[in-house]
Amino acid sequence: MIVSRGIHMGWLLRENAAALGILVSYDVAVTCAYLWLHWHWLSIPLLPLPLLGSAIALILTIRNNAAYARWWEARTLWGAILNNSRNFARGVLAQIDDAALAQHLIRCQIAYALTLRCHLLRISNADALASYLPPDLAESCAKAANVPMAIQAAMGRALAAARLGGKLDTVAVGNLDRTLAAVVDAQGGLERIKNTPLPRQYSALPLVFSRAYCVMLPLGLVKGLGLAMPLGSALIGFMFLILNEVGLDLEDPFSNNMHDLPMKAITRTLEIDLLQTIGAEEIPPPITPQAGILA
Amino acid sequence: MIVSRGIHMGWLLRENAAALGILVSYDVAVTCAYLWLHWHWLSIPLLPLPLLGSAIALILTIRNNAAYARWWEARTLWGAILNNSRNFARGVLAQIDDAALAQHLIRCQIAYALTLRCHLLRISNADALASYLPPDLAESCAKAANVPMAIQAAMGRALAAARLGGKLDTVAVGNLDRTLAAVVDAQGGLERIKNTPLPRQYSALPLVFSRAYCVMLPLGLVKGLGLAMPLGSALIGFMFLILNEVGLDLEDPFSNNMHDLPMKAITRTLEIDLLQTIGAEEIPPPITPQAGILA
Amino acid sequence: MIVSRGIHMGWLLRENAAALGILVSYDVAVTCAYLWLHWHWLSIPLLPLPLLGSAIALILTIRNNAAYARWWEARTLWGAILNNSRNFARGVLAQIDDAALAQHLIRCQIAYALTLRCHLLRISNADALASYLPPDLAESCAKAANVPMAIQAAMGRALAAARLGGKLDTVAVGNLDRTLAAVVDAQGGLERIKNTPLPRQYSALPLVFSRAYCVMLPLGLVKGLGLAMPLGSALIGFMFLILNEVGLDLEDPFSNNMHDLPMKAITRTLEIDLLQTIGAEEIPPPITPQAGILA
Amino acid sequence: MIVSRGIHMGWLLRENAAALGILVSYDVAVTCAYLWLHWHWLSIPLLPLPLLGSAIALILTIRNNAAYARWWEARTLWGAILNNSRNFARGVLAQIDDAALAQHLIRCQIAYALTLRCHLLRISNADALASYLPPDLAESCAKAANVPMAIQAAMGRALAAARLGGKLDTVAVGNLDRTLAAVVDAQGGLERIKNTPLPRQYSALPLVFSRAYCVMLPLGLVKGLGLAMPLGSALIGFMFLILNEVGLDLEDPFSNNMHDLPMKAITRTLEIDLLQTIGAEEIPPPITPQAGILA
Amino acid sequence: MIVSRGIHMGWLLRENAAALGILVSYDVAVTCAYLWLHWHWLSIPLLPLPLLGSAIALILTIRNNAAYARWWEARTLWGAILNNSRNFARGVLAQIDDAALAQHLIRCQIAYALTLRCHLLRISNADALASYLPPDLAESCAKAANVPMAIQAAMGRALAAARLGGKLDTVAVGNLDRTLAAVVDAQGGLERIKNTPLPRQYSALPLVFSRAYCVMLPLGLVKGLGLAMPLGSALIGFMFLILNEVGLDLEDPFSNNMHDLPMKAITRTLEIDLLQTIGAEEIPPPITPQAGILA
Repeated sequence: MIVSRGIHMGWLLRENAAALGILVSYDVAVTCAYLWLHWHWLSIPLLPLPLLGSAIALILTIRNNAAYARWWEARTLWGAILNNSRNFARGVLAQIDDAALAQHLIRCQIAYALTLRCHLLRISNADALASYLPPDLAESCAKAANVPMAIQAAMGRALAAARLGGKLDTVAVGNLDRTLAAVVDAQGGLERIKNTPLPRQYSALPLVFSRAYCVMLPLGLVKGLGLAMPLGSALIGFMFLILNEVGLDLEDPFSNNMHDLPMKAITRTLEIDLLQTIGAEEIPPPITPQAGILA
Repeated sequence: MIVSRGIHMGWLLRENAAALGILVSYDVAVTCAYLWLHWHWLSIPLLPLPLLGSAIALILTIRNNAAYARWWEARTLWGAILNNSRNFARGVLAQIDDAALAQHLIRCQIAYALTLRCHLLRISNADALASYLPPDLAESCAKAANVPMAIQAAMGRALAAARLGGKLDTVAVGNLDRTLAAVVDAQGGLERIKNTPLPRQYSALPLVFSRAYCVMLPLGLVKGLGLAMPLGSALIGFMFLILNEVGLDLEDPFSNNMHDLPMKAITRTLEIDLLQTIGAEEIPPPITPQAGILA
Repeated sequence: MIVSRGIHMGWLLRENAAALGILVSYDVAVTCAYLWLHWHWLSIPLLPLPLLGSAIALILTIRNNAAYARWWEARTLWGAILNNSRNFARGVLAQIDDAALAQHLIRCQIAYALTLRCHLLRISNADALASYLPPDLAESCAKAANVPMAIQAAMGRALAAARLGGKLDTVAVGNLDRTLAAVVDAQGGLERIKNTPLPRQYSALPLVFSRAYCVMLPLGLVKGLGLAMPLGSALIGFMFLILNEVGLDLEDPFSNNMHDLPMKAITRTLEIDLLQTIGAEEIPPPITPQAGILA
Repeated sequence: MIVSRGIHMGWLLRENAAALGILVSYDVAVTCAYLWLHWHWLSIPLLPLPLLGSAIALILTIRNNAAYARWWEARTLWGAILNNSRNFARGVLAQIDDAALAQHLIRCQIAYALTLRCHLLRISNADALASYLPPDLAESCAKAANVPMAIQAAMGRALAAARLGGKLDTVAVGNLDRTLAAVVDAQGGLERIKNTPLPRQYSALPLVFSRAYCVMLPLGLVKGLGLAMPLGSALIGFMFLILNEVGLDLEDPFSNNMHDLPMKAITRTLEIDLLQTIGAEEIPPPITPQAGILA
Repeated sequence: MIVSRGIHMGWLLRENAAALGILVSYDVAVTCAYLWLHWHWLSIPLLPLPLLGSAIALILTIRNNAAYARWWEARTLWGAILNNSRNFARGVLAQIDDAALAQHLIRCQIAYALTLRCHLLRISNADALASYLPPDLAESCAKAANVPMAIQAAMGRALAAARLGGKLDTVAVGNLDRTLAAVVDAQGGLERIKNTPLPRQYSALPLVFSRAYCVMLPLGLVKGLGLAMPLGSALIGFMFLILNEVGLDLEDPFSNNMHDLPMKAITRTLEIDLLQTIGAEEIPPPITPQAGILA
């Protein structure tokens, strides 16, 4: 996620240099063809442009609103995982007297959050498993298709064993289980966003339409603007391309690029909070933005 | 659901070839009539077109937003069924010592999800019943009008019997029942979306208006654009028709076509997860997209 | 509620024949006055029309979105009543051993739903009371201002008596009471929608503005369109009138007309489900659409 | 709240006579100055008007949507107070055997709702306190800054005393307390809406911009419309002023004017329902609309 | 937060004097260059301006809606903290007989709310800690990275100790813990809004586009408007700049400026309410607006 406030014209131009380059070249080519080659058939009257523009604005609005809603829902769900992990840790420490068991459960919860991030990004989770789980559990969980879910299941089994062993009463198990269920619900929501892309029509159409618009724009403007055409045409075309780009950036919040949710920072916060809770000695530093990007 | 990213101009043209063909033929006919037959009365001034366009944009926005909200709500409800089924399985295994009963309940829950999909699509559920329910229960459930609801009722009776038989205490029954009630709520929501179509006016008007617009567009543009008219007119008209199409695709998410929610994949995920939980031996493979479509 | 898919141009024309007739007559009159009587002062420049159109589009969008949200919220609340009635019946049968009492409670719940519909539509509920309540209870409930609420109160008293008589424990009463409270909440929401109309300004302004627009439209178009004016002007004016109509249809979902929620079908579904649950012999048939309308 | 359906052109004109008068006078003055005094420098070309109009439409849409959402949220919160008061009364009667205590609690809840209305409107609550609370409690509550909250606190103390005196068990207290907490939440929401106005920029800008628009409109239209200008200009300007007015009416739903939520009617409904529940003899009549306004 | 209703043209002009000054100077310069220096190449045809305007309106609407939603969500979350703190205090007083412990817990909750405000604004919390916590607890909490969270943890430990010491039963601890968990959830939401800025593209693009628009506007209008151009151009440009400003004001509700949520007033209300509850003698006065601004 970009956190730097310094995203202004310079940044925009750099990031979209390729698209802008093609756009300007095309605009210049049309201008030259019209003014010096006298290909006057290139010019078309202006009217269809606003009609076209309103259709594009319509679909861009729907798409960008939906993409932003997905992004913010994903962020809210990660927030729910963070909150409920803290509630779980507080509950475990207040209700379980066996310190080793309490530590084990809280370390499992850290491993859960770290592997959930890996699961969503489809990257290796070996580090997270090795650092926070006992070797045999790490090994058995690593084989599961859904690693975080396997860790949750192991935690459920540990709680059930504690209840049978008399270390926890029914009410306490019920409370902890409700917190875990809230975490499972949030994970389900994140997987839903990951596995159900925005309807492809909403992803693809704005791009197709924006490009068609950029092709027609100089043909409509060349007669009126003359030599100034490439400037005006590129500015307007660039705006629509950028708006489309913003929607694409947000519509999949787990895609391993700089527009992702800062999941590394979120899970690190959770790691630090929970490790402090159990008095761990080595605590990793918080994640800070690198060149304006928070991972 | 379409998952392939490759939906670009080519795909759009192929899918909508018929509509586009009619549109272009009509545009060409108008051009010919105007330019060669000199039917100049065909041309109308441009002004009404933007007025018309804004009315269409208005209703298309309302309709497409509502259709997308229905689609995403349906997806979220299926996610709730998936989450609560997992929670139910975890709860059953943790709280019921009788392994046969636990297995029976979890297999019932799989049958529930599979028949719910069939129920929404109005297709045969014989396979699901035969695979996961004991023959007598399968037979009695098959007769019910609402098969998934009948399976739920049977599960409720099994839980009540277990409580009477002393295999479960009141608190545990309460917890499991709350999870089942959450599943019933989600099913109720899915049936609501299935049985209550978007107000028909919102379904029908955009189509009627878009077609009227496509008829008037070439009459308005022919004088100004001349030979280039079919291109511009077809592009704009095609956009409005496509936007209408996107809304129609999303407004009923259970209609047995390629824009449906991927219910087969969702229920298969649930099947695999729950079968693994009870250590089943034969586990079906996950559903993968076929030619870019996930069923 | 209209469920037939066949609402196309023909249907629209028939339903709105009066408005359309007045509109076309007026448009023709203006055309004649301008072309044959040479009342050229009738013609006004075009500019104010788009300005006017954008103000109307603005308020129509706000109004129609709000009306649709009211309609869908009402449908969702009826869904909640349906779901919670099923949950209540399942809970009653699983937890109450006295079969007569269980039947009585479930029949009360059916009477509740049937009278709630009557209450919202302000129609007679004599049938519902006579069919499902014992005569003395039916008589006492019939006198209440809020009949469904009186039935609920009677159910609450029956549950309290059962608890005092030792037929139900505290936890079970608590569970059943929570379900009834969810039903009361949904009823409260339905009464809120019934008793609090959309702010009257939002109801009245679109109509006033649309009519003003229809009056001005032909004056603006007559100079440019000539003989073709009645066609273009009627089409655009008709669109705005129709859009206003759609909003009016949805903004009050309980008004005894064909745009109402299908409350008869919903309560019949509930009736059938609950009667089957208690093994009743005479079960009424489901409601089916009549001429494309589901009541 | 206006409930009469008869708000049409006549009503609008009467309510906004002053604004309309100024508007028309100004339009006529511009027309005269242009046509008879030949102040041709008054006329400005038309182009900036649509640009200006779209900026105003933009902010009006955002503001009016937000204002409507505030109004409907406030209505929903009052609905929650009504529902939970009914649930509280049902719970009190079912679980407390001491009839005097039960009556006291229910009368407190009536006083709570009545004083909450007074609290939100900043009006005297002497009547409500005198009618429903014992004199000493009324006196002590009257001194509190937040009277409804003081009544709730007294109810909490009465419940605690009942529990200590053995008249209520822990579970029952927990259930009643949850209902009271839901009422407190709803009150918190109402105070939030009361104390946090819509961002002042959103309140003030539409007015400033609409007025600027009304000033510029005749200058832009006078050349083209001539003598007909005051009509067209006043109509368009009036629309924007009215749209702004609607937003202002809704944005503060507790401001002692005719656009307020019908809090008197809501609390009266609650009063009647709860008094009937405890078999009171004197029951006030329901509030009915006066001249189309429900207070 | 601005609460004064007196924000009209005067206020807007003062607050944005710098931007307006630059805008007007530029507009005047263009006019002079065009009219007296006869730099006629400065003038560009008007058409691209509406195209540009619609793209800007599009992104401004999305951004300002999202910013308002963030602001209102933050306000709602603070309301949840206020409500649940009151519920916590009521619960503590009703269920804990040890007066000293009850007072300690309620004072901790006050310190929690005060330090949460400091935490969000990144300002010193020394006062809050010194006034309401015992010195040793204040010292240990002051060292934590997340001070409010540390206070909550201390409260959790105090509750656990009270349960072990027999001062509280399991059910009461469960109820109080649920209230604390609701507070933690609300804090999590506030930190989410604080730490996850609106996507930077949505923050930066409206500014970039609005400025580009202000640069082009006079070039487009100078030919038509002549000497009147600076007035019209500045008015329109100013509107877009103001709309952008409103969004920026709301998008980060914790940024130590006058557009912030009135957190000082909210926490003071909480302080007063809770101190009155425990019968404290010195109670601070409520916060009142200063020069129309509520802090």
